[in-house]
Amino acid sequence: MNESNNLKNAVILAAGQGKRMRAATSKVLCEVAGKPMLNWVIDAARKAEAGEICVIASETDVMEAAAKAGCMTRQQTERLGTGHAVRMAEDFLEARCGGDTLILCGDNPFMDSETIGKAYGLHTRQGNAVTVITAEIADPARYGRIIRSGDALAGIVEDADCSEEQKKIREINSGAFWFRTEDLLAALKKIRNDNAQGEYYLTDAVAILLEENRKAGAYKADTEDVVLGANDPAGLLLLNEIAAKRAVDRHLANGVQFRLRDGVVIGPDVIIEPGAVILPGCTLTGKTVIRTGAVIGPNSMVTDSEIGEGTVFESSKATDAFVGKDVRIGPYVQLRPDARIGDKVKIGDFVEIKNSSIGEGTSVAHLTYIGDADVGKYCNFGCGVVFVNYDGEVKNRTRVGDYCFVGCNTNLIAPVTLGDGAYTAAGATVTKDVPAGALAISREALVIKDGWAAKKLKKYIEKKQKLSQ
Amino acid sequence: MNESNNLKNAVILAAGQGKRMRAATSKVLCEVAGKPMLNWVIDAARKAEAGEICVIASETDVMEAAAKAGCMTRQQTERLGTGHAVRMAEDFLEARCGGDTLILCGDNPFMDSETIGKAYGLHTRQGNAVTVITAEIADPARYGRIIRSGDALAGIVEDADCSEEQKKIREINSGAFWFRTEDLLAALKKIRNDNAQGEYYLTDAVAILLEENRKAGAYKADTEDVVLGANDPAGLLLLNEIAAKRAVDRHLANGVQFRLRDGVVIGPDVIIEPGAVILPGCTLTGKTVIRTGAVIGPNSMVTDSEIGEGTVFESSKATDAFVGKDVRIGPYVQLRPDARIGDKVKIGDFVEIKNSSIGEGTSVAHLTYIGDADVGKYCNFGCGVVFVNYDGEVKNRTRVGDYCFVGCNTNLIAPVTLGDGAYTAAGATVTKDVPAGALAISREALVIKDGWAAKKLKKYIEKKQKLSQ
Amino acid sequence: MNESNNLKNAVILAAGQGKRMRAATSKVLCEVAGKPMLNWVIDAARKAEAGEICVIASETDVMEAAAKAGCMTRQQTERLGTGHAVRMAEDFLEARCGGDTLILCGDNPFMDSETIGKAYGLHTRQGNAVTVITAEIADPARYGRIIRSGDALAGIVEDADCSEEQKKIREINSGAFWFRTEDLLAALKKIRNDNAQGEYYLTDAVAILLEENRKAGAYKADTEDVVLGANDPAGLLLLNEIAAKRAVDRHLANGVQFRLRDGVVIGPDVIIEPGAVILPGCTLTGKTVIRTGAVIGPNSMVTDSEIGEGTVFESSKATDAFVGKDVRIGPYVQLRPDARIGDKVKIGDFVEIKNSSIGEGTSVAHLTYIGDADVGKYCNFGCGVVFVNYDGEVKNRTRVGDYCFVGCNTNLIAPVTLGDGAYTAAGATVTKDVPAGALAISREALVIKDGWAAKKLKKYIEKKQKLSQ
Repeated sequence: MNESNNLKNAVILAAGQGKRMRAATSKVLCEVAGKPMLNWVIDAARKAEAGEICVIASETDVMEAAAKAGCMTRQQTERLGTGHAVRMAEDFLEARCGGDTLILCGDNPFMDSETIGKAYGLHTRQGNAVTVITAEIADPARYGRIIRSGDALAGIVEDADCSEEQKKIREINSGAFWFRTEDLLAALKKIRNDNAQGEYYLTDAVAILLEENRKAGAYKADTEDVVLGANDPAGLLLLNEIAAKRAVDRHLANGVQFRLRDGVVIGPDVIIEPGAVILPGCTLTGKTVIRTGAVIGPNSMVTDSEIGEGTVFESSKATDAFVGKDVRIGPYVQLRPDARIGDKVKIGDFVEIKNSSIGEGTSVAHLTYIGDADVGKYCNFGCGVVFVNYDGEVKNRTRVGDYCFVGCNTNLIAPVTLGDGAYTAAGATVTKDVPAGALAISREALVIKDGWAAKKLKKYIEKKQKLSQ
Repeated sequence: MNESNNLKNAVILAAGQGKRMRAATSKVLCEVAGKPMLNWVIDAARKAEAGEICVIASETDVMEAAAKAGCMTRQQTERLGTGHAVRMAEDFLEARCGGDTLILCGDNPFMDSETIGKAYGLHTRQGNAVTVITAEIADPARYGRIIRSGDALAGIVEDADCSEEQKKIREINSGAFWFRTEDLLAALKKIRNDNAQGEYYLTDAVAILLEENRKAGAYKADTEDVVLGANDPAGLLLLNEIAAKRAVDRHLANGVQFRLRDGVVIGPDVIIEPGAVILPGCTLTGKTVIRTGAVIGPNSMVTDSEIGEGTVFESSKATDAFVGKDVRIGPYVQLRPDARIGDKVKIGDFVEIKNSSIGEGTSVAHLTYIGDADVGKYCNFGCGVVFVNYDGEVKNRTRVGDYCFVGCNTNLIAPVTLGDGAYTAAGATVTKDVPAGALAISREALVIKDGWAAKKLKKYIEKKQKLSQ
Repeated sequence: MNESNNLKNAVILAAGQGKRMRAATSKVLCEVAGKPMLNWVIDAARKAEAGEICVIASETDVMEAAAKAGCMTRQQTERLGTGHAVRMAEDFLEARCGGDTLILCGDNPFMDSETIGKAYGLHTRQGNAVTVITAEIADPARYGRIIRSGDALAGIVEDADCSEEQKKIREINSGAFWFRTEDLLAALKKIRNDNAQGEYYLTDAVAILLEENRKAGAYKADTEDVVLGANDPAGLLLLNEIAAKRAVDRHLANGVQFRLRDGVVIGPDVIIEPGAVILPGCTLTGKTVIRTGAVIGPNSMVTDSEIGEGTVFESSKATDAFVGKDVRIGPYVQLRPDARIGDKVKIGDFVEIKNSSIGEGTSVAHLTYIGDADVGKYCNFGCGVVFVNYDGEVKNRTRVGDYCFVGCNTNLIAPVTLGDGAYTAAGATVTKDVPAGALAISREALVIKDGWAAKKLKKYIEKKQKLSQ
């Protein structure tokens, strides 16, 4: 990325609810590959080292999402055009003068850091007051066309204003720009809304700079994807389909195996090492890392988690979890935040682990909940074990030593500690610490009442015997 | 729909097993988008307000399915042609004379109510004795061709009988008709089986009416889908693929979001509000309703259930259930019939709820079964709680008040009542009512046997220590 | 298949790691439709009755996999060409002289037994010293071209050595051959590495036999699939996509129903009877058998298991299991090795069964683990039952008679026996045998502490009441 010491800032235009999307959120928060469109754009700006970011939004949910992503925000309460939107950031820009400002559209998720960086390179090399990022697309209708004069930008003509000749131009305005910040501020003050819509357009700022004979350039992106956006659910599905295809292609090229593409959703920030295998129906999102030789799926969901080398993660879900090497997980397991699973652990069906560390080689075979615990290595958990971590007031922590054997349907009432090599008998409710090497048992004597069931189950058995005939 | 007071009836031709399908059921019961083909046709007739429906079937399973759907049935024991099939309904028709009769094919699932209604409009406007529903298709081979004389129907010519000129006609007989009931009955009596196959054809009834100079019309459907059927599994798969694509398209246009189309099956009677999100791998069938802002999937199965506004329903199954607003369900949950989940409830992994109501804000985090119960609001269920609703004789009901705290691995032996704010200790088996604000505990004292485990687990620990080195 | 008594052997070339695949295993062990490519080739040779098989490998994992599949193995420690590879099997071939030897490539999974058998037929009919298996492909670049002289083989010309005219030949060398074993051995001794790469090529053995005027033939396979291989993950995905499409097509033609193709992976050795229904997202692998009328999925995983007639297997996993007729399983069930499920059994959610037989009509509704047990017919298991089969030392077996009623959260401590019609009370820990018709109960008296919870839960209730307002 660009290592320039020049001051850079970015303004992301994210106002408007996007009513045609009919979403429960504002449009820019709709997800592509498990990540809101706005966050794609914010992260592209970050990756391009575009400096402090100010998001211009109208809706509360967007303001909150931008703040959560570490951006400055300015609210545009009236919708008076892109120029008016950037004006909302005037104080932000004035405080950061002397450098360059990147303008991005919050609903173009595929605008990438490489394009932004290369455009910046051209912008500074040419000493431009403004550099528009362009794309050449098959069907330019509805877009502003790029008029070039040699290498330089001569103008941007809106579709409605195009001559027949200009209509044929397929290089279009992406809506993204690099401006010298001072020039942008000066031009913003001069744009007017004396047009049919009564709006202030950012392209008028470009026109003003051109009129003033300032240098202007145009950087053409390698792909038309940078201008792709979505106005309705069909368009959003298309973005998701493109993102899914690309993600699989990218990981295939990097040595990752897939059996079918069906139902595979992989977010843009997911890292998968060569030699990993992703089975159908998996959703991998957030800052997930899949190590070499791991086999994920079918139908696994992994978010912000690391799955270690050679680990099998079958039909299970992990969120904010860490799983070591050569672990066997699933099917039907949930790892919740801060589950940390050691190497060679086995976790079988219907097990949930939350905010707990599990030591190397420990086995949790079935129907068990481990919450708020530190478990040692090479322990064996029977079926139906419950870490009773919550008493209605506070959540307490449990400690289990190495080589412990926790019997089936044991309740461990936190806070409690099992020493190394402790054993709990099936059905025990463990209310106090168990020393190393000790057995804990709480078991009422079994009473056998002969003949009782014969009477009780008379009708049941008769009914079933009929079925059996 | 048509609000005419004219008497209307419908006869659906559903005889034959459909051996080429090689299905475990008769062909017309094979499913398209989770709904048997016959039920698509029955519902189209109902939606078109075509009056009482009589299904002509040969197989027992079809007779039963038709009766279950509220139709009259007549059995055709011999397979002697479509004319013979309609004759099986002679008594049905005679009892409903004076109006019009719709004839439909039980294996054309995409014949829709709009087409049926518009055909009826033409039929009555023109005062026809018979109106055939037609479609224009790309490859008319094998179908009967429609011969028109101006706007009127001049004849239907079977493929085998077509002249070279007639073979070029692409408007074909869908097999669906509106008849004036009296005319149909009269013509049925006159049709003969003096043909190569020795069968009675319904199209001969049309020919007889034309010979008698009765008015005959032809209504051309907007789409060729109305004639689509399936004779074998490949054809049935194609119908399902068409239905899946169409359902997603329809809901997209209505403001519903999808991330990928993969594995998404949506039945024709499912309602999804704009702003809902359907993730890959979901099967939504029956009279399911998904409210706005709900997020369903991946890999969820919802049948005849309502999922409320803003609710997350992740990798779980619901059948005949109702889920309120802002609920968080899954992964790996099953809601069985008559589960009624209040607003803001949280249901975590490995929980089954059946025939129970759960009050607002209650939390059922993991590994719990709630059956035959009324649970209040803002309760907290520990892990491994079981509502013991069946004793081998009868199923009993449990009541849990508001703000109760039910400890892990608690057994609630129905019938039993927990008062508001009651608390059960982990491992309790609750055999009698617990008053409001009381604690119920049944717990054998824990016995610690020092050194016992050290001996018992000697070999276990040695084996594991080797692995650990 | 060919019933000839002639001695036959096969040599499979499987050396090389296949670095471009970047897999965690050697390339030939990468899976197509859930089966390693090498095993596809081994099984094709077996099905063609090609006699004893010797796999030439360089990597340890391939040596082990070949041995596990019952093949002889020879290690090629240096990579000096295909001729050198076959030489590794010289002792194997010398011990089996007097017949014919099949040479196959370990990374061509779609080379099929029919092609091999037909090529052998031509080979023996023509009395050839060598018969090459060929394919006609659209883009022959990179492949050796087949030069024919009438029906006979005149030569194989490598792509680099082709004249312009020869480059147009679309019949290519598949790399698979039938040799008279003695001729192969003789020719192998004569091939030289005086070429640019310094390697020994098997095709030079063919050239030597031609020079010596031995009879040589070429058998052209019906399909170009026989030469398909994969060098990288994209190629491997393509093989999997082809295998998936073909498997569905094959089973459709055989009367099996599918709703969508999405996410359906079916191994080559899976048998599905007509009338079965496979829903989306299913992975069926190994020697799995699905009987007529069974409904599998969505999202089920079945390996080396039989699912009986009319059985529903919904969103569950089975490995090495047997399931009878009219069983209802799922969602979210795991059948582990040696689960044997009788007819009409019902297994509900979150149940695991391992190494156990379950008698006819028994019901295991939820959250239960049955391991190492023999369970009779028409039993009813409550929720949370655990068969405690492992005590840290040994796994013991449990026996449950017919018509037993096992209460919720019961622990059955193996070894233990429940007689017919025995009943265990909820929460019992059963440590000794329960006679037929008897009740087993171990239950501490319930203590109710009035007012205790009211104090304990004061803050909890206040917090929740605020949410409730």
